[in-house]
Amino acid sequence: MKGINVGLLGFGTVGSGVVKILKEKQTLLQDKIGTKIVLKKICDKNIELKRIVKIDKDMLTTDPYEVITDPQIDILIELIGGINPAKEYIMEALKNGKHIVTANKALLAQEGKEIFATAKKHQRCVYFEASVGAGIPIIKSIREGLIANRFLNIHGILNGTSNFILTRMSEDNFSFREALKEAKKQGYAEADPRLDIEGIDSAHKLIILAYLCYGKLFDINDIYVEGISRISSADIIYAKDMGFNIKLLAIAKKIKNELEMRIHPTLIPYNHLLSSVRGIFNAIYISADLVDDLLFYGPGAGQMSAASAVVADLVDLTRHIKAGIFSPVMEIIEDRMVGRLKNIEDIESRYYIRFLAIDKPGVLAKIAGILGKYQISIASVTQKERKKQKIVPIVMITHEAKEKNLKEALFRVGQLNVIKDKPVAIRIEEL
Amino acid sequence: MKGINVGLLGFGTVGSGVVKILKEKQTLLQDKIGTKIVLKKICDKNIELKRIVKIDKDMLTTDPYEVITDPQIDILIELIGGINPAKEYIMEALKNGKHIVTANKALLAQEGKEIFATAKKHQRCVYFEASVGAGIPIIKSIREGLIANRFLNIHGILNGTSNFILTRMSEDNFSFREALKEAKKQGYAEADPRLDIEGIDSAHKLIILAYLCYGKLFDINDIYVEGISRISSADIIYAKDMGFNIKLLAIAKKIKNELEMRIHPTLIPYNHLLSSVRGIFNAIYISADLVDDLLFYGPGAGQMSAASAVVADLVDLTRHIKAGIFSPVMEIIEDRMVGRLKNIEDIESRYYIRFLAIDKPGVLAKIAGILGKYQISIASVTQKERKKQKIVPIVMITHEAKEKNLKEALFRVGQLNVIKDKPVAIRIEEL
Repeated sequence: MKGINVGLLGFGTVGSGVVKILKEKQTLLQDKIGTKIVLKKICDKNIELKRIVKIDKDMLTTDPYEVITDPQIDILIELIGGINPAKEYIMEALKNGKHIVTANKALLAQEGKEIFATAKKHQRCVYFEASVGAGIPIIKSIREGLIANRFLNIHGILNGTSNFILTRMSEDNFSFREALKEAKKQGYAEADPRLDIEGIDSAHKLIILAYLCYGKLFDINDIYVEGISRISSADIIYAKDMGFNIKLLAIAKKIKNELEMRIHPTLIPYNHLLSSVRGIFNAIYISADLVDDLLFYGPGAGQMSAASAVVADLVDLTRHIKAGIFSPVMEIIEDRMVGRLKNIEDIESRYYIRFLAIDKPGVLAKIAGILGKYQISIASVTQKERKKQKIVPIVMITHEAKEKNLKEALFRVGQLNVIKDKPVAIRIEEL
Repeated sequence: MKGINVGLLGFGTVGSGVVKILKEKQTLLQDKIGTKIVLKKICDKNIELKRIVKIDKDMLTTDPYEVITDPQIDILIELIGGINPAKEYIMEALKNGKHIVTANKALLAQEGKEIFATAKKHQRCVYFEASVGAGIPIIKSIREGLIANRFLNIHGILNGTSNFILTRMSEDNFSFREALKEAKKQGYAEADPRLDIEGIDSAHKLIILAYLCYGKLFDINDIYVEGISRISSADIIYAKDMGFNIKLLAIAKKIKNELEMRIHPTLIPYNHLLSSVRGIFNAIYISADLVDDLLFYGPGAGQMSAASAVVADLVDLTRHIKAGIFSPVMEIIEDRMVGRLKNIEDIESRYYIRFLAIDKPGVLAKIAGILGKYQISIASVTQKERKKQKIVPIVMITHEAKEKNLKEALFRVGQLNVIKDKPVAIRIEEL
């Protein structure tokens, strides 16, 4: 029986994980699917480096086009990452009749339209289970398992690095800097961690999930993206006192005909499952019309976890190629109920606010007065210390308020001469 | 283009949910999969009853064989429940060349071997996503999304009714009876709730999950099954004091070459996600070699949630029929590492123990002495009240101990004349 031939671009961490699985679990996979998956060629810039798995030297090349143009190869796995040259390789491979498996969230979020259109034109599939939540089968679940549903909201903890940092800050009283340093030390953060801690990686993943749920591939520039680098230990502690954990949340929320898409640090009440997602774990909380609320949870990164998802994609493709199905698993259908993206200024939310104010009579009245003028009503207020005529933190939780009003009110409060430093505001999510 | 014809046996709660989806979302589904799913016939004992969806009277019949033998029907949905006559109908339908979609966990757990063998013989598929966790796509995830994994452990909250009762007992201080009454009132418990509260429904579901994970369909008689009917409010409160929630847990655990399969009330520490699963929600926590720990969470019951899973199965089958794939999605492969089932007597666990003892000097020493003799070491002990010469509860948490030893020790302790009532023991699960 003819097997399915696979070529790999990128023999890095996840790449060598995939190779290891295909080697060590060949029999298991063949028994399960009735077809042999044959890894034929691997391309990497560095083919001398020692990997966790031994490979026949003849299989290795430094020339990607040796893989892309090989007529015997049915499926190309792209694990290089980044936009270029990954995009060029994928486009060429599609034109050469290859199906694609990739974990490249940045590429799909940015260039997905062109890639999916090219795939469709050439009747080839692009699979990308490993691009969100590593080994959590979230993409298959949305696309296939929940196919009859209309999706309402997505609330995701999608970046393991940020969640690791916030967990350390919360549980070990680390400062942001200390926690980031620890993340780097443990290999959870890149030398340049901006993609992770500034929310960009989360945004890429949310764009992919929203594409599956609502059928539209949104532009990252149209989404509100705020990372965790300005979160202070103090705010984490005060939030905890009030029964909340702070998480970097990726939110897509359907309200009437509008969709909110935003990534930002968020207060989540203790009793919600998302509040208990610790360390490098990811979780995706989805609301849909038929199934109500579902949660998918697992490690958000890791060599073998991501490789598990890549191999699952390979298996699906193998089965479909064998059966002669050349269309994507399921067509992505645009949800016509989802109109334009809502501007962050126009959202409504509850807020955690912290002011640094001079401790003297009348200060609270002044603050409350300004907030009231902007229709912001206060649910609770705590002055954290007592130091007459000294600077003390005042923490408030508001009821639902308009973001625009809140911004203006905080600007006005910030101008009071009893207020030191810029007021801090963090959104609270009702779940 | 020829559509796929579907027949339905059982026009009850879930059945009418399925009909509603097929009717209201016909276009959405057709757009996504490129094929029309046509509901052709519905059989139920009562075809006069009003349902949530209007149906052409010509489609209704009271004769199941009108559906089973209709040569135009490609897929039969069985939503009657119970063993007989559901089994007979499914077997006949397979022999008549129909594929099957069912939510019938009891039937699959009890008669699965014969059903799956018959399906294989006739090259037809039996799909059963709705049988575990309603709309949670757990079966597809295990079978397809995690295909490259070897499974280690399963920890599941699989019965919504029991979890609802335990939640009410814990959060509202209901007695077991009161909570059961409330569950019945809200439609979460059957008139005869034994399948749910005695752990049998959980066992059926665990058998199905273990079949997918380990490739063996175990007999319910070989599994330890203990329900929640003997859990008292007192134990729930004492457990909470020590940082645990009590849940009815379905456990499959691979230890070396043996597999533990057991359903019983279990203490789970607060900081574990499973501890936060409330009300009728279900959760399946799975450990596997590549992905580590995953959690799948969602409503464990509900008309539209279960119907969502049935329709997802229909869609998968439709696509496969169209492509001419007549084998099951993936072959179930026996995990040769899983040998025999371990007897409950041979497991090791930590335990919560409660004694009712007369409050006088020397009692604790006597109890501890007996436990010590059986190699049971105590991690913590609390006497809940002080009432000299009166009966008071003593609560202990043990370190890891052998079940057999524990049983014998408790029997011996129970014989002391300072001990009133039978000692209570509840297992604690390390997660």
